[in-house]
Amino acid sequence: MSTPSTSSAISAAASVGAVTPQTARFDVPLPLRCGRELDGFELVYETYGTLNAERSNAVLICHALNASHHVAGHYADEPGNTGWWENMIGPGKPVDTRRFFVIGVNNIGGCHGSTGPLSINPQSGRAWGGDFPLVTVEDWVDAQQHLANHLGITRFAAVMGGSLGAMQALAWATRYPERLRHSVIIACTPSLSAQNIAFNEVARQAIITDPDFNDGNYREKGTAPKRGLRVARMVGHITYLSDDEMAHKFGRQLKNGRVGYTFDTEFQIESYLRHQGNKFADYFDANTYLRITRALDYFDPALEHGGNLAAALKPVQAGVLVVSFSTDWRFSPERSHEIVHALLKNRARVSYAEIDAPHGHDAFLLDDPRYHGLIGAYFERIHAEVAP
Amino acid sequence: MSTPSTSSAISAAASVGAVTPQTARFDVPLPLRCGRELDGFELVYETYGTLNAERSNAVLICHALNASHHVAGHYADEPGNTGWWENMIGPGKPVDTRRFFVIGVNNIGGCHGSTGPLSINPQSGRAWGGDFPLVTVEDWVDAQQHLANHLGITRFAAVMGGSLGAMQALAWATRYPERLRHSVIIACTPSLSAQNIAFNEVARQAIITDPDFNDGNYREKGTAPKRGLRVARMVGHITYLSDDEMAHKFGRQLKNGRVGYTFDTEFQIESYLRHQGNKFADYFDANTYLRITRALDYFDPALEHGGNLAAALKPVQAGVLVVSFSTDWRFSPERSHEIVHALLKNRARVSYAEIDAPHGHDAFLLDDPRYHGLIGAYFERIHAEVAP
Repeated sequence: MSTPSTSSAISAAASVGAVTPQTARFDVPLPLRCGRELDGFELVYETYGTLNAERSNAVLICHALNASHHVAGHYADEPGNTGWWENMIGPGKPVDTRRFFVIGVNNIGGCHGSTGPLSINPQSGRAWGGDFPLVTVEDWVDAQQHLANHLGITRFAAVMGGSLGAMQALAWATRYPERLRHSVIIACTPSLSAQNIAFNEVARQAIITDPDFNDGNYREKGTAPKRGLRVARMVGHITYLSDDEMAHKFGRQLKNGRVGYTFDTEFQIESYLRHQGNKFADYFDANTYLRITRALDYFDPALEHGGNLAAALKPVQAGVLVVSFSTDWRFSPERSHEIVHALLKNRARVSYAEIDAPHGHDAFLLDDPRYHGLIGAYFERIHAEVAP
Repeated sequence: MSTPSTSSAISAAASVGAVTPQTARFDVPLPLRCGRELDGFELVYETYGTLNAERSNAVLICHALNASHHVAGHYADEPGNTGWWENMIGPGKPVDTRRFFVIGVNNIGGCHGSTGPLSINPQSGRAWGGDFPLVTVEDWVDAQQHLANHLGITRFAAVMGGSLGAMQALAWATRYPERLRHSVIIACTPSLSAQNIAFNEVARQAIITDPDFNDGNYREKGTAPKRGLRVARMVGHITYLSDDEMAHKFGRQLKNGRVGYTFDTEFQIESYLRHQGNKFADYFDANTYLRITRALDYFDPALEHGGNLAAALKPVQAGVLVVSFSTDWRFSPERSHEIVHALLKNRARVSYAEIDAPHGHDAFLLDDPRYHGLIGAYFERIHAEVAP
């Protein structure tokens, strides 16, 4: 086993470079938890690195709320459009693409190319819009499993994600236990709390009550519920940052140095939130946002086992790494402990780390040396297992 | 000094009964912090108990975000409409109206009868609407001072409030130090954090971007930004409850016993939030909501003293009681400590209690025996000071 990359080595590491998304079409029915079924579906994905001859070095990256299949690298015609986990995945990075074949995939119900509300409903010949079914974490994992088959991957070296992505990594370990060696679960919770659901509900109500929502069929009407999506994103952003990080980044700083007694932007934090809201409302689809927040709400593997999480996680065969962040008040370390305790109860192989990071939930996306050092070291171990 | 009321005595205590709001008209200009001025103004208020001959037993209650002058008792024609602090104020209650003359007042900019956006602008002859000036905690206190003069009260036995009401009690102690014996500051902060401002900004943006807002002149247009006000109230409610209290009250309980895969109400917490939002949007004025959240944002007595809170509180002569609640994540106990430390630095008379209550910020409105016992005991001391 070689020495784990040091933090400075990681910072200096290169990118996977220019990448090209691909589309896989699956002409098989996909039954969904809601009782409906897709006759077939497409998944957009990207890959980085090379699948080895043994097909043992594949790592699936599952995305969270607003992300996509574009995990690392950039597009040749859009050099500034880098992947959302560029600091984590690449040559010499914690998930080292010189060793691992890494796959990013956009989930069904999404708005980045996979079958979703923007796609054509083959039965009507028109875009699905508000008629697209509600999807769940388990549906996503089932769809991803078809992609694994398509790529000839019987067993992933690891399935990995943060936040909602981590829920998928956990669902993989229970639904397809023999198909992954490791599950890497970062900033996760075994189920949303009432407060988590409450924030999602505020976001949804902002969208649904926007007069431009039109029951989800806004594209047909030539409208878009941008006002609602903007407010939804603003409220989301508050929950991604810790109180301290917000205080550190913005505090009570005034935009123009003095109070103007107006409802325009007075404080820097307002400027930041409005900017985030506007940006998001311009590129994200409201029907997707509604579905993704509902998928979060519904995720609750223990529910079918009378609330017994250990029973729900009984099928897990993978080695599991659980990582939480001290200041994450959205999915607090205590919620990660529930996952760890359930796995320990089952005598599963589980490692746990709580990273003392100031950034709140968003920490899982940031370049913290201890966090990246830990993930790098864990993938060193995986490499040692899977290297021929 | 008599024995402090016990908790059971308090529960069994009577109400002040039927009350009648009164209106005081002040034909004096009221300069506002924003640089504008009201030519005159009206304050709606209620009183409970009897002012003693020495005029030494008056207690002013300042209200928080959505409350009003209706602090205790009920209206003869509306027996169900009890005051918002009915559990705190009345005969035999912690603020005992057999001993104290208690005053509740609606603030300017409000929507419960005092001069505000719903009032007629004498210069235009039409309702102020969106043209009503932005008001501050200091402006409210200045207006209340005119009411004190009107009632012949030179010195209050106490000025008291929770949350935004507590900010007024604090501002009284610095602006009119000789006019109150005690300042009772409950669930307060010396200034909003970036996160606090962020939540207010989400609420405001929901209102302002509602197409029915019409720049605040919605009444003229026969509309009301109810969708925005509803979302604003929903997000507010999340911050009033602790995560644990929400978990305890609602958890992941489903409204219909099972998941329906819909955006309708699935979880009990959604039902609660929608109900609160709808109720609020029906009775509260959006222009007032905007102004009150801005008053919260602006409150920062230390600002004019280079961030030195002790310097800002230097004028305080009153005895101060500061009370915080352990699970209040909106205005956490740490923020109350800042007030206490600043007062201690000034060698002011300050008492502090952190109540270990599960309810979050809303705890200041609830009937917790330790909390009420503490307030009752403090008012016993005040009574001993002011009784002839």
